[in-house]
Amino acid sequence: MDQEAQPFLYRSVSGKIAGLIEEGVLRPGERVPSVRRISAQEGVSVSTILQAYTLLESRGYIEARPQSGFYVRSRRDNLPPEPRTSAPGRPATRVGISGLVSRVLQAVTDPEVVPFGAACPAPELLPGQKVNRLLAGLIRRSGREINSYNFPPGLYELRRQVARRSLDWGGRLAPEEIVVTCGATEALHLCLRAVAQPGDLVAIESPAYFGTLLLLEALGMQVIEIPSHPRHGMCLDLLGDALKKHRIRACIASPNFSNPLGSSMPDEGKRELVAMLTRREVPLIEDDLYGDLYFGQARPRSAKAFDTEGLVLLCSSFSKMIAPGYRVGWTAPGRFQAKVEALKLTTTLATPTLLQAAIAEFLESGAYDRHLRKMRAAFATQTEQMIAAVGEHFPAGTKVTRPAGGFVLWVELPHRVDSLELQERALAERISISPGPIFSARQRYRNYIRLNCGYPWSDRLDQALRTLGRLARG
Amino acid sequence: MDQEAQPFLYRSVSGKIAGLIEEGVLRPGERVPSVRRISAQEGVSVSTILQAYTLLESRGYIEARPQSGFYVRSRRDNLPPEPRTSAPGRPATRVGISGLVSRVLQAVTDPEVVPFGAACPAPELLPGQKVNRLLAGLIRRSGREINSYNFPPGLYELRRQVARRSLDWGGRLAPEEIVVTCGATEALHLCLRAVAQPGDLVAIESPAYFGTLLLLEALGMQVIEIPSHPRHGMCLDLLGDALKKHRIRACIASPNFSNPLGSSMPDEGKRELVAMLTRREVPLIEDDLYGDLYFGQARPRSAKAFDTEGLVLLCSSFSKMIAPGYRVGWTAPGRFQAKVEALKLTTTLATPTLLQAAIAEFLESGAYDRHLRKMRAAFATQTEQMIAAVGEHFPAGTKVTRPAGGFVLWVELPHRVDSLELQERALAERISISPGPIFSARQRYRNYIRLNCGYPWSDRLDQALRTLGRLARG
Repeated sequence: MDQEAQPFLYRSVSGKIAGLIEEGVLRPGERVPSVRRISAQEGVSVSTILQAYTLLESRGYIEARPQSGFYVRSRRDNLPPEPRTSAPGRPATRVGISGLVSRVLQAVTDPEVVPFGAACPAPELLPGQKVNRLLAGLIRRSGREINSYNFPPGLYELRRQVARRSLDWGGRLAPEEIVVTCGATEALHLCLRAVAQPGDLVAIESPAYFGTLLLLEALGMQVIEIPSHPRHGMCLDLLGDALKKHRIRACIASPNFSNPLGSSMPDEGKRELVAMLTRREVPLIEDDLYGDLYFGQARPRSAKAFDTEGLVLLCSSFSKMIAPGYRVGWTAPGRFQAKVEALKLTTTLATPTLLQAAIAEFLESGAYDRHLRKMRAAFATQTEQMIAAVGEHFPAGTKVTRPAGGFVLWVELPHRVDSLELQERALAERISISPGPIFSARQRYRNYIRLNCGYPWSDRLDQALRTLGRLARG
Repeated sequence: MDQEAQPFLYRSVSGKIAGLIEEGVLRPGERVPSVRRISAQEGVSVSTILQAYTLLESRGYIEARPQSGFYVRSRRDNLPPEPRTSAPGRPATRVGISGLVSRVLQAVTDPEVVPFGAACPAPELLPGQKVNRLLAGLIRRSGREINSYNFPPGLYELRRQVARRSLDWGGRLAPEEIVVTCGATEALHLCLRAVAQPGDLVAIESPAYFGTLLLLEALGMQVIEIPSHPRHGMCLDLLGDALKKHRIRACIASPNFSNPLGSSMPDEGKRELVAMLTRREVPLIEDDLYGDLYFGQARPRSAKAFDTEGLVLLCSSFSKMIAPGYRVGWTAPGRFQAKVEALKLTTTLATPTLLQAAIAEFLESGAYDRHLRKMRAAFATQTEQMIAAVGEHFPAGTKVTRPAGGFVLWVELPHRVDSLELQERALAERISISPGPIFSARQRYRNYIRLNCGYPWSDRLDQALRTLGRLARG
C-alpha cells in the first residue's frame, strides 16, 4: 500500500491516536476506540478509519486482536529485554522448597495485599457467580442423588464436555478416557504416582511450577531440571542428552504456557517431545492448565494430540478459568487410566458431585466459550500492561518474558537482587510476589521473581509495581 | 416390684403387646406405640401402661431407649451367635485387594441394586437437602470470595465447629489444631504419609476397612494384621507382642465402631493403646468416622482424648452423617500438623470453599445434633432388624456381630461358603454385598461378608436377605 497516495484524513486520525499513545493517555494493552465509534465521532468513513488503524499497526503503535478490535502495543523501545534460556545446572537432585511456598499462598486470601504473588485471576474476571447460580438451580431441581458419592472416573456429563472440547486442542478423547479430579493438583499427583516411584528420576522444565516441585519433594522423587527457552520451552536437545545419560522415569512439562515462563512450544516441538519420550517408553505428564488462555489466533495443540501410545497423561482444571474454590480438574491418563482411578480411591475417593454437575452445565450452555474469549483478551492486555510497567519502574538490567498465553511474567532482576529478601520487604509493604527459588528444585533463580498478571491494571497496581521497583533498586 | 400384686389391667396390655411381638406384627427394632398413645387407646392410666412396659422389658420383649421410647428387642434365642476374635495370622505382608473393591463401589450408584454392599446410609436419612439449601443461601449472600482458594488448614468457621464438638469425645481441640480435608479418605492419606514411608510396617485391626488397606497398598507399605475382638476391637496384648517383635512405624485403628466389626474399645483400652504406642513413639492414626453414631447413652471417648504427646492423629468426616458427595472431612494430626498441611498442598491444594462453609453453617445452627439423635436411633433399629433377619434367613452355623454403633454387620458364614462367589451370584440377583477378603491384606475371611444396615428395613430388604440366605445355603 502506498501510504503517500492516500487522502489526508486518515493520516490526521492516525496522528491523533499516535499522539494519545505517546502522551500515555492510551496505555499499552488498552483497547483503542472502535473503528465505528471513531468513524462516527470524526465524521469520516469506516474505510478511512480502517486505513488509519492499518497505518498505526504497521508503525507498531497498535495491534489487531481477532474478534476483539485494536489494542495499544507495548512500546518496544522502552521494554526490558527477554531473559535467556535457563541454565539450571544438570545433576539430578532432590527438592527442598516447601518452606518457601506457604508465604506466597497465605498472601492470596488477604485482600489488603497486592496480588502479584500467586497465579490467581481477579475474582471479577471469573464467572464463579454465574456457576454458583447454576449450582443453586441444580439444588432446587435435583433429588437426593446429587449428594451421593460419585466414584472414579467421575460424572459422565462433565467427562463428556471435556471430551467434546478435546477437538479444540487436536485430540479426540472419549468420556471413558477421562478421570475427574479435585483440581489439577490431584490430577498431577495421581499421574505422577501412576508412572513413577519414590527415588525415581523425573525430568522437568526449569524454572518449573512450584506445585510440581512440592509434589516431587513430597513423593521423594529425584528431579533433573532441563534448561528451557523463555519462548519455546524445554530445550529438546538437552532433554535428549539427559535421556541418554540418565534413567529418567517420567517427564513433566507444560508445552502450552509454562508457569512461570509463559513459553509456548511450537507444534513441531511437541511432536518431537512425544516421539523422543515414546521411543524410550518414558511417560509425559502434560500440565495443560493454561492451554485455553492463548493470546494468539487459535488454541495451540496439546502434546497429547501427538500421543499414539497412550504415554501422555494430560492434566488440566477449571480452577483458573471458572472458580479456584471449586477444585474441579481432570486428567486423560492414557494407558494409566486404571491405575489413576485406583489411586484416586485412596486420595479423595470421589470429587464433590454437586460441583462437577455445576461445571458440566456451564460448559454445556456455551457460556464457557464466550467467557474464555473475554478472559483471553483481558489477560493479554494485563500482561502487556505489566511488561510496560516493569520497563518503566524496574532497575536497569531487568529482563522480562513475553508470554504467549496465561497470566504470569518471569522477571530477571540484576544479579545483586535477592528475591527472598525482596519478597520479605515487599510483604512489609503489603505486596506479594513469588520469589525465583520456589521455581527450582535447588532454589536457583535468586534474582528472579514471578509476577501475577491476573488482575485488571489499576493505579493501585501501578503504584505497587513502582514500590517494588524501588525496593529492587535497594 | 411384685408383679402379682398389680391390678389386672397392666397384664392385659402387656399380654397384647407380647402377642403382637410373638406373631411378628411388631418386629425386632420397631418402636412400640408410645405410653401416652396406648393409655389413650385403652383408656387406662399412663402409670398402668408404664407398668406394663416395665414388665415387657423385664421379660426381654422390649427395651427402653433414652428420649426415644420403647422398642422391640431381638428375640435372643433365635439369633445367630457372635463370631470369635479374628485370627488373621501374624507375618508382615503387602496388600493386594484393589481389584476386588471396585465392584462393591460401582454397585452403590445403581438404585436397582439392593444396597447391602458399601457402607452408605439411605439418602433419605441424610440432611443433605437441608445443607444444600444452606448452600444456596450462602451463594445468594456471599461475594466472590466464596469461590476463591481456601488453603490449608481450611475454613476457620468449620474448624471452630469441629473444635467445639471435641468436648463431646473428651478432647479440647483448638481450631488451629485441625486441618480440613477432602473426606476422611484424604485425612487418612495425609496422616499416613506424614508418619510412615513406603516399605514401613503398619499395624492394623483385622478385619480392617478396605479403604485403609487400599491406601497401604498404594503407598507400598507393609501391614501386620492384629487379631481383633468383635466387641472390644484390637487385642492389645497381641499388639504389644507385635510392637516388641517388629519395627512398627504406625498403627491405624477405629476404637469407636470399627468397620467392619462394629467393635467398641472400652475407654481403659483406649488409654492403654495410646500409652503403649506412646512409650515406643509410634503414632496412632485414629479413624473416628463412626464415633458420633453410638447406640448407647453417651458419645464414647476417642483415643485422642488420652493423647498427651501429640502422637494421635484423629481423622473423621461428615460424609456418613451429612452428605457423602460433599467430600468434607478433617484431621487433628497432633505434632504432625505442619507436615499434614504441607502434604495437602500436593494432593488437592485446598478443600472446596463453598462446601466447607455450608457444613460449618449446618453445625453452627444446632440442626446437626438434632439430626444425629434421629440417625442414631434409626441405625440402632436397622442394625437390630438386620441381625434378626440374618438369624431368620441364613444357614445354620452363621454368626453375626453385635455392633455398639455405626451401621454395618460382620457375618461369618459356614466354612464351605465362598463370599467372592456369593458376591457374584448376589449381584446377578441385583443384591450387592461386601465380601470378606477385601477386609484383609491377604484376602482372608473368605467365608465372611459385611452387610450395610444404612437403609430403613423394608419388605424389599427382607426379600433380598432371604435370597442371600438361599444363595449362601448353596
